[in-house]
Amino acid sequence: MIPSMKNLFPFLFVLASCTTPEKLTRYPLSPSEVLKKATSKDWRTPNEKNLIYFYVNKEPVVIELSPAFAPKHFENIKKIVKSKYWDGLYVMRSQDNYVIQWGDPDEKKKGFLKKHKSNIAQTLPGEFEVALSSLEKVSPLKDKDVYSSQVGFVNGFPVGYSSKENKAWLAHCYGMVGVSRDEDPNSGNGSSLYVVTGHSPRHLDRNITLVGRVLHGIENLSTIQRGKGALGFFKDKKKYVPIRKVRMASQVSKKQKLNLKVLRTDTSLFQEYIEARKSRKESWFHRPAGHISLCNVNIPVQNSKH
Amino acid sequence: MIPSMKNLFPFLFVLASCTTPEKLTRYPLSPSEVLKKATSKDWRTPNEKNLIYFYVNKEPVVIELSPAFAPKHFENIKKIVKSKYWDGLYVMRSQDNYVIQWGDPDEKKKGFLKKHKSNIAQTLPGEFEVALSSLEKVSPLKDKDVYSSQVGFVNGFPVGYSSKENKAWLAHCYGMVGVSRDEDPNSGNGSSLYVVTGHSPRHLDRNITLVGRVLHGIENLSTIQRGKGALGFFKDKKKYVPIRKVRMASQVSKKQKLNLKVLRTDTSLFQEYIEARKSRKESWFHRPAGHISLCNVNIPVQNSKH
Repeated sequence: MIPSMKNLFPFLFVLASCTTPEKLTRYPLSPSEVLKKATSKDWRTPNEKNLIYFYVNKEPVVIELSPAFAPKHFENIKKIVKSKYWDGLYVMRSQDNYVIQWGDPDEKKKGFLKKHKSNIAQTLPGEFEVALSSLEKVSPLKDKDVYSSQVGFVNGFPVGYSSKENKAWLAHCYGMVGVSRDEDPNSGNGSSLYVVTGHSPRHLDRNITLVGRVLHGIENLSTIQRGKGALGFFKDKKKYVPIRKVRMASQVSKKQKLNLKVLRTDTSLFQEYIEARKSRKESWFHRPAGHISLCNVNIPVQNSKH
Repeated sequence: MIPSMKNLFPFLFVLASCTTPEKLTRYPLSPSEVLKKATSKDWRTPNEKNLIYFYVNKEPVVIELSPAFAPKHFENIKKIVKSKYWDGLYVMRSQDNYVIQWGDPDEKKKGFLKKHKSNIAQTLPGEFEVALSSLEKVSPLKDKDVYSSQVGFVNGFPVGYSSKENKAWLAHCYGMVGVSRDEDPNSGNGSSLYVVTGHSPRHLDRNITLVGRVLHGIENLSTIQRGKGALGFFKDKKKYVPIRKVRMASQVSKKQKLNLKVLRTDTSLFQEYIEARKSRKESWFHRPAGHISLCNVNIPVQNSKH
């Protein structure tokens, strides 16, 4: 909604009758009303082993990794975090309407493995897709999609899939986290990651390894000043944004840990939430869309610790 | 592309052979190679009468208005700019993955018309759609769309349309500019505008008046710190981002004026550009998407004055 200031607050209470220019379906509940119906069973607490706390300032960016879609990168990234490799390195790229990216801008000079003796893999095979049959339940999105014959959700992540090919892959929606790589599809290892901070670049699906999704604090990344070099890399090293520290959730003190819950995507309540977003009840909506694209579903995350 | 730092520069020269896992189409030229073929006839210089220079800092944000899609708002917004109404007002909202919005946060108190004696309309009928037959050529995008039965481009703007209904409307892609309104579809007047700074909220199409598109400098808006109030409004007035000034291009000195050119969308070269973006030639792309969504087309803008 884009209210002018005049009527910001009444929106919360609006249950007025709807004037529709033609017969348009409206779901009987608004998205927020659906969420109010949610019980504790409709929310899941992400597995702490999959959570990264990434700090460019005092506010954490919390990332949920998906071992199901990128098991090798998942293991390697955990090792990278635990080695504290990223501490003191940089966000070195911020491309408007696309991605931010971090890692070691002088990788070539310093050498990753020279600095970190390691069981950390220097390169890994790209994990662009997995067998659909290897996954837990896929909850399909009924709407069509421009990029994939089938789309839906697996455990809170947006996915494309093909029953025919028995393949599934994470989809490049806003906030998704992926592994930078070079020309060779098998040249990434997770030491440089990117986060989608613009309109979903779905053309990257199945071209690069996605490993997770930002659950909290993405504004600390999406507002980083844009780089003026090619592809949004910072030309001026002074513009690099230092990474204060990166930790696995298990390494974060109880005091600093957030209590995040993610709406489960395999429930009937989530299906209701989608319907409510497709066919908005609120009378501000003159003409509910009746459709929704994968990346517009916006899977809700709750932080009960403020 | 998401290169690691190691191989950033070779991308510009890569013409390597492609290893495709199955038969995938690749357009013979890359998008940048298509753009290199463009002649002066493929670019248009936007009509100066339609351009707004908006300053929150020294760098202008340049907006192209579309009189064809919102004639009444177009006229009113020009009057608002010329009255200098916005000078000293604020960006008062920045909602992550959605919009920024500016205007008078204290509109209710101060009263718009009390301050500005005016031929400026206080409210205007919503201009959510126009007759398709009233438009110049529509260049269709062949790919399907989740929100609209037909999509394409009119004079550099992304549009949805319906030949059956004889209707067309601007589409909420990244960088599009619209008119904030209240509950009543006819309650906006252009004195408060918003800019899409996140994943395209296409569900707003035909629900609110779009008036134009940011051609240049959107990073000055998209990096504004997010508001912590409801819908991303700033709770703390100290966070408001002051608007230095807003001018029509005709009011901007020759020295400060940019020389912007927008790729024409009604040419065969533009169709080639779309094909090149759909079916990427560059060998970095392991699996070219073969499809493209309306808001991923990214209509190129050139600034020949630096």
